[in-house]
Amino acid sequence: MNVAKIAVVGASGYSGEELLRLLGGHPGVEIVCVTSRQHRGKPLAEVQPAFHSHLQLGGLHFSDATVGAVTGSGAVLAFLALPHGLAAEFVQPLLAAGVRVVDLSADFRLRDPGVYKEFYGEEHPAPEMLETSIYGLPEVYREKIRTARLIASPGCYPTSILLPLIPLLREKLVEPVGIVANSMSGVTGAGRKADVAYLFAECNESVRAYGLPRHRHLSEIEQELSIAAGEKIHVCFHPHLIPVNRGIHTAISARAAHGTTEAMLRDALEAAYGSEPFIRLIPGFPDVKHVTRSNFLDLTWRLDSRTQTVVLLSAEDNLVKGAGGQAIQSMNLMLGLPETLGLL
Amino acid sequence: MNVAKIAVVGASGYSGEELLRLLGGHPGVEIVCVTSRQHRGKPLAEVQPAFHSHLQLGGLHFSDATVGAVTGSGAVLAFLALPHGLAAEFVQPLLAAGVRVVDLSADFRLRDPGVYKEFYGEEHPAPEMLETSIYGLPEVYREKIRTARLIASPGCYPTSILLPLIPLLREKLVEPVGIVANSMSGVTGAGRKADVAYLFAECNESVRAYGLPRHRHLSEIEQELSIAAGEKIHVCFHPHLIPVNRGIHTAISARAAHGTTEAMLRDALEAAYGSEPFIRLIPGFPDVKHVTRSNFLDLTWRLDSRTQTVVLLSAEDNLVKGAGGQAIQSMNLMLGLPETLGLL
Amino acid sequence: MNVAKIAVVGASGYSGEELLRLLGGHPGVEIVCVTSRQHRGKPLAEVQPAFHSHLQLGGLHFSDATVGAVTGSGAVLAFLALPHGLAAEFVQPLLAAGVRVVDLSADFRLRDPGVYKEFYGEEHPAPEMLETSIYGLPEVYREKIRTARLIASPGCYPTSILLPLIPLLREKLVEPVGIVANSMSGVTGAGRKADVAYLFAECNESVRAYGLPRHRHLSEIEQELSIAAGEKIHVCFHPHLIPVNRGIHTAISARAAHGTTEAMLRDALEAAYGSEPFIRLIPGFPDVKHVTRSNFLDLTWRLDSRTQTVVLLSAEDNLVKGAGGQAIQSMNLMLGLPETLGLL
Amino acid sequence: MNVAKIAVVGASGYSGEELLRLLGGHPGVEIVCVTSRQHRGKPLAEVQPAFHSHLQLGGLHFSDATVGAVTGSGAVLAFLALPHGLAAEFVQPLLAAGVRVVDLSADFRLRDPGVYKEFYGEEHPAPEMLETSIYGLPEVYREKIRTARLIASPGCYPTSILLPLIPLLREKLVEPVGIVANSMSGVTGAGRKADVAYLFAECNESVRAYGLPRHRHLSEIEQELSIAAGEKIHVCFHPHLIPVNRGIHTAISARAAHGTTEAMLRDALEAAYGSEPFIRLIPGFPDVKHVTRSNFLDLTWRLDSRTQTVVLLSAEDNLVKGAGGQAIQSMNLMLGLPETLGLL
Repeated sequence: MNVAKIAVVGASGYSGEELLRLLGGHPGVEIVCVTSRQHRGKPLAEVQPAFHSHLQLGGLHFSDATVGAVTGSGAVLAFLALPHGLAAEFVQPLLAAGVRVVDLSADFRLRDPGVYKEFYGEEHPAPEMLETSIYGLPEVYREKIRTARLIASPGCYPTSILLPLIPLLREKLVEPVGIVANSMSGVTGAGRKADVAYLFAECNESVRAYGLPRHRHLSEIEQELSIAAGEKIHVCFHPHLIPVNRGIHTAISARAAHGTTEAMLRDALEAAYGSEPFIRLIPGFPDVKHVTRSNFLDLTWRLDSRTQTVVLLSAEDNLVKGAGGQAIQSMNLMLGLPETLGLL
Repeated sequence: MNVAKIAVVGASGYSGEELLRLLGGHPGVEIVCVTSRQHRGKPLAEVQPAFHSHLQLGGLHFSDATVGAVTGSGAVLAFLALPHGLAAEFVQPLLAAGVRVVDLSADFRLRDPGVYKEFYGEEHPAPEMLETSIYGLPEVYREKIRTARLIASPGCYPTSILLPLIPLLREKLVEPVGIVANSMSGVTGAGRKADVAYLFAECNESVRAYGLPRHRHLSEIEQELSIAAGEKIHVCFHPHLIPVNRGIHTAISARAAHGTTEAMLRDALEAAYGSEPFIRLIPGFPDVKHVTRSNFLDLTWRLDSRTQTVVLLSAEDNLVKGAGGQAIQSMNLMLGLPETLGLL
Repeated sequence: MNVAKIAVVGASGYSGEELLRLLGGHPGVEIVCVTSRQHRGKPLAEVQPAFHSHLQLGGLHFSDATVGAVTGSGAVLAFLALPHGLAAEFVQPLLAAGVRVVDLSADFRLRDPGVYKEFYGEEHPAPEMLETSIYGLPEVYREKIRTARLIASPGCYPTSILLPLIPLLREKLVEPVGIVANSMSGVTGAGRKADVAYLFAECNESVRAYGLPRHRHLSEIEQELSIAAGEKIHVCFHPHLIPVNRGIHTAISARAAHGTTEAMLRDALEAAYGSEPFIRLIPGFPDVKHVTRSNFLDLTWRLDSRTQTVVLLSAEDNLVKGAGGQAIQSMNLMLGLPETLGLL
Repeated sequence: MNVAKIAVVGASGYSGEELLRLLGGHPGVEIVCVTSRQHRGKPLAEVQPAFHSHLQLGGLHFSDATVGAVTGSGAVLAFLALPHGLAAEFVQPLLAAGVRVVDLSADFRLRDPGVYKEFYGEEHPAPEMLETSIYGLPEVYREKIRTARLIASPGCYPTSILLPLIPLLREKLVEPVGIVANSMSGVTGAGRKADVAYLFAECNESVRAYGLPRHRHLSEIEQELSIAAGEKIHVCFHPHLIPVNRGIHTAISARAAHGTTEAMLRDALEAAYGSEPFIRLIPGFPDVKHVTRSNFLDLTWRLDSRTQTVVLLSAEDNLVKGAGGQAIQSMNLMLGLPETLGLL
């Protein structure tokens, strides 16, 4: 197989590490550049000892996180796994140099720079790029992703909420008002940063909500749900932190539209996802442990006839389908590779 | 202080163990009888090594779980910490013998035996006792508890849902339709029973919903919310199992009534709970780690103006405010002791 | 590649599940038979939902655990992942039918049936087979494994102790007396069986030793260390259970032989393992999280000059290098495949 | 009861928090001063929400961490729960002002300033105070503690190692050479400081050794063991970090002296500890979960006749018997209170 040269910018966090693990086993790519400001010059395996002796990753060293490091490496595609706000300075010069970009941050997910300012508190650093970017949810935007130059890979929470709801909103099986999404995330979702709030003894034997009622991810959730519904949607989103390393579990409540039956829900979800390789419609209850380290999103549905409520439950690995795995799914499409390559 | 003689029937599970721990430090009682069918004859400290050398508990032995063991011990009050369905055979003879009862099971929480059958799948074993029992939520039924002969101590989930909602339903600050309660429980909630589903490796690095959309606790939740609202209420209840030993965290969404403001929510909760010793209205986000081993329920509220939704967050220790601690709160009231004795 | 047909007998436990996960991604084999007495007839993915939609494993069903199920499937090699004592009834008929066997149990690890009786408390069920079996530690018995018909794959604890010590005993860099091995195991090591001792709430926030001073694994540890040393060795072995799903960490203390230096330790370990694909000699401290789901054993050493003690630290995944991964390493050798196939 | 006024200097870490929890339920003291440089001026309950509404602690505010704050509060005794190296600046002025001191740091535990320099890497800041200080292990130094002005409360690891070994060394039932102590500590042992190494996702599903072969606690371990043995002792000490919040489990191997029997071990330990309120000699295996939040140290022993090794297993809560609880035990002695007051 003709392998594509790939760069990973910002490879020392949890998302970057998982992305590297997945790329390291991917037969269609060669990693030619990994960058980290903090660890530049060091062997990757010194910072992430799991990669010591790894066939593909064992010999990599961190470059400094510069545009030149990427373009000089011959990479045709770069993943950006940077904190929010830093991607903009890489995107424009990389695209100009002909390097396609899959950005894992939130920087290019919103179409409206005003919404960006509302939720992120500052002006968008490169509003002119927003039109260029494609929201990297392959189950929704597959064809656009194939030819995109810039992918804004979805957030972990949004993925777990959008995939269950979009088919039902499109088919008008649930009402567009009154949607409540309760999500629980593992602690890798907070990133690998020194912060007392995420110490082991602060998170173990702990459960807590945070960020509500206006978590930043609401902006992309509502953008995409509104597109699916054909009207402006507002939702309640309640994120929680729970003591697991990985995984997001979401329980969504939505008012059933008049006449909606459990069979209609099943039919709509099967029509949407029956052929999707990474969405598993299951009869039982999703559990994050069943999707750990995989790109699957497990999904089930119930109609609560007592309250005429549709309940949707989803589970994903926040670092795979919620981050690196989904980004590779987009990369496969962009490179004309089988969409599941390296992910099944 | 004149100490009261107390029995604990079914003392080898997690609820029974926590109840014993709390009673063991309670200055107003003497434990004269602990029973366990499985462990009869054994020293308590052999089964629960944490109690080895304990001043009050260290010398106790398990009696067989019989009515005679309780009545013969001279106990004036008995706690029943039995699996659901077993309490009935103890309640009638104990009451007849003049022993007051605090039952931690679900057997006497419902006023309507038809609802019991609907949710528990069988005829109620002693429907004539349902009128006798008082629902042991002191913040709501304090005066009735003082003189009650039989207390049905509330379930762990219901406690975490009822206390936040009741004042707001009474004051009509939230709508009685469309309420959604998402709860997460520690694994002690499943009891100390040999079951593969609750093995460490099945629960660790796992999150899963279960029992929805018709968990048994819905029956008492809806009963008590309906009383508060003055009309029949149905709610959506989504319980989850998370990898902590103890604690329940609940996030409730309810539609704000027309004109409800955040100040009105605060005023209603402060009016209801400002003087309550075990309910803490806090500005930040409740976390189960802050209530572990205490009888506090931490509670906060938000008004999501984008969706006109009231969000209520609560945290409690499922074995204390959700079980043994709340039961002792009732006992204190029944015995004329200070309500907080042994609990602060 | 010409793929080999493989059976897995007893595939519903943790070791069997991990073995299947690894075999499911192995390009040189096809799984033609998975058996489970408890779950016969059920889809594998119903019992182990992580395998739902899996390319190789998604369509498998459990057969009953019989010899006929294996021989009828056309398998040329069978893994036995059964509780101890049950392998014997499969081994003889399978070998007679020309099916090679890799047994993950302890049944055929000991050369001396007397030692088996001493440690396992009963007569060996098939002592005549003990001569046939080869102890499946590839770093020590690689050539014998290639042609073996019956492999006794090593225990998880023994692997973590033998690999660090054998080269140093062979080179006489440590004394053969006074060896102490302290090991900590994740809870999957106890198997997937309904037992109160392994409930989440019993293991979480818990650490405890067990089985000492005569854990069954001592028998194979001492057998193999004695071979390496050329004299009979007794060791102290202290196993502990800790709240992780996977992983064994072992700290070994051994008296330095007169004149032993840190450089001599390094040279001996590098001579033994410098070319081994699955043993990583690392400068820092091994951590089970760096070997999770991999077949690596991480190993470091220190010479404590204050006490003239050699300290060896190792970390492995108990279900991979300690069980299924190591078994596949043997299988690769037996089938003439690259030893690392499907494992890197 | 005549209550004593007490100060806690450095009250915002895990040890300080636990100390406050214990003192908050102690009937013989009143906390008149809590200090924190980082949080001065804030309500204690804002920093440690578990104390919100606490009868004794709920109203406290942090003072700045100065000597004047303590002396001005009228405290007769001050606990110092500061990082190592900072206690010295408080000790001298407090003692001069007539305030007795219980120091939880390592600063005054060593008698020889040369050993301090060897293990802590710098000159002792106040070597003239070393003679004044008493090592606060009540089971060994009870009488000296009663009249001490300065207590150096023992480290968490040393407590778990010294208490099992001292009686056996005194009675010469174990050899003074060849002692190996393997300890596992919960993550609160690392303190509440922002450090990537102690993030949840770095510690969960992880086990690792650290600090060996020359962990700082060795200095006080060897000092006290040498006193017990009457000769200079060196030991091997292997600390590990495991994913629990609290607890230290230690397994000690020591060579049995010629003629030592299991009965002799039992007799020696019962003679030493049979009347001790906080040491529990148990037949089974100690487990940290049985001592959580208590001042007990659980202890058992085995004679491994195959290797003539004495195995000692201990479990304690690192924040209670390993820190705050033991410090209060000393305080009780110093103030002439019952030694167990507030601790049972």
